Amino acid sequence: LKELEFIKYIKGKFRYRKPVVKGIGDDCAVVSRGKGTYGLFTADMLIEGIHFKKNTPPFFIGRKAMCVNISDIAAMGAKPEYALISVGASRKKGISYLKGISDGALAAAKKFNVSVIGGDTNASPVTVINVMMTGSVEKKNLITRSGARKGDCLFVTGVLGEGNKRHLTFTPRLREAGILARNFRISAMIDLSDGLSMDLNRLASESRVGARVYRSLIPVREYSERSIENAIYAGEDFELLFAASPRESRKIIKSISGKNGLNASLIGEVTGKSGGVRLVKEDGSSEELKPRGYSHF
Amino acid sequence: LKELEFIKYIKGKFRYRKPVVKGIGDDCAVVSRGKGTYGLFTADMLIEGIHFKKNTPPFFIGRKAMCVNISDIAAMGAKPEYALISVGASRKKGISYLKGISDGALAAAKKFNVSVIGGDTNASPVTVINVMMTGSVEKKNLITRSGARKGDCLFVTGVLGEGNKRHLTFTPRLREAGILARNFRISAMIDLSDGLSMDLNRLASESRVGARVYRSLIPVREYSERSIENAIYAGEDFELLFAASPRESRKIIKSISGKNGLNASLIGEVTGKSGGVRLVKEDGSSEELKPRGYSHF
Repeated sequence: LKELEFIKYIKGKFRYRKPVVKGIGDDCAVVSRGKGTYGLFTADMLIEGIHFKKNTPPFFIGRKAMCVNISDIAAMGAKPEYALISVGASRKKGISYLKGISDGALAAAKKFNVSVIGGDTNASPVTVINVMMTGSVEKKNLITRSGARKGDCLFVTGVLGEGNKRHLTFTPRLREAGILARNFRISAMIDLSDGLSMDLNRLASESRVGARVYRSLIPVREYSERSIENAIYAGEDFELLFAASPRESRKIIKSISGKNGLNASLIGEVTGKSGGVRLVKEDGSSEELKPRGYSHF
Repeated sequence: LKELEFIKYIKGKFRYRKPVVKGIGDDCAVVSRGKGTYGLFTADMLIEGIHFKKNTPPFFIGRKAMCVNISDIAAMGAKPEYALISVGASRKKGISYLKGISDGALAAAKKFNVSVIGGDTNASPVTVINVMMTGSVEKKNLITRSGARKGDCLFVTGVLGEGNKRHLTFTPRLREAGILARNFRISAMIDLSDGLSMDLNRLASESRVGARVYRSLIPVREYSERSIENAIYAGEDFELLFAASPRESRKIIKSISGKNGLNASLIGEVTGKSGGVRLVKEDGSSEELKPRGYSHF
């Protein structure tokens, strides 16, 4: 996992000065704005051949670049504000390709109330797009990756394992994150960009806890070995994984079953760090859930 | 000039809501922070084969990515605050390559007092780096591209035409921009990333004015046809081009000639829009200075 190794290296190099509250290691960087508000910053880069195909229509490239950043902002319980878009594309693609990318990005920005305020276009041998996004959240509503405590319940929104089909058309869970941040005390949250195994390990590592996830509780479209494997390892679902105390969890579960309820499922629990991150199989035996999945390095 | 065509398209699509003061079309986007401060946002993407070579040492890639953004912030009279770095590189390059890029970026960040608070790493067939940077400036000190007025004098800092040699090692003119913003009323400013011809046309277009630049006044290391051509068209100098009223210009010129003086040269004047953007040759005749130079599309 060279990406994790690199992040460790990078983290060691940084000394944040006030008012930086959180830097590398969460969905967004967090900066205090004084009074009761935090400002959030996040950036995600999508590259041809890695995050989309050579023949992916440009509209969906722009849309995805915007939505993955909205998902990062949502994962901290915040609302997006501004975005800057940098695009690199081959000279051969022409202006209609660039327009397609920006139309897709602007459509998503409009839907989720993001103000696109700048950007940059470049010639590039492969298509690459970077969106940087800011957000804001009331201090009391900020949710990080590092607040999970032993005894908490673990939930995910929606259905997992569909990233392969939906990674260009998914809906970032901004609405759900807002409901969670405003109505419940959520201990920790992360968006599932690289698969449950990778992102649960990230959340556990940042919170210095262990976790147990029950294979039979993982929400999939249709039950099969293959779909469970995809749910755990395949990534690009952009659903939310979150933890809450047993007391809050009872309220959350009530809300799930109610009308206009939250589309979420209980999948496991938070344990002590020494327990590690484990997957409990249908027969009750368990195995280590290694942070395997989509790694860029 | 497809990039300009695209920027026009994109500008037409945007409706800014308060507190966005400036969006696409300047070095940075500008957002009011209330009280007396503007927040600035800018992003620049560098791509292998376009902005650096396949064999450019990674340290200099990271350094350049940071410095071009600092230059954009400086061009508005502001100070940089935070940066987010997104990097894409081949899996084959390994972790030492990524470390080299981040070491270069962090060295520049430290030197110019920028706080790197986040980022993203990805696999990519070619090396690509995007830095997004925020800055801040007192409202009264903000300098845009659009404030040049007929009769203003035009200046550039430093020496032009050296971009080819210095684009990996240049010093962003943050100190000079600070001196200008705090001590003089500067009507308009832009950093010279794409060459004098391109960037002067941008400044003139945003200010709705014309301009005359005197070929014999353009500061070059050693006078030759070739070096003057490079100064006008070659780009990547990252010096500052700025305009000031005749009254302010007298003060600026005094400061240039004084001890610890500003390293800047008077190169021409601002005219009415109908005059167009012109280059006055050594024999007194003049020609249109077309926005030719480094265009990515």
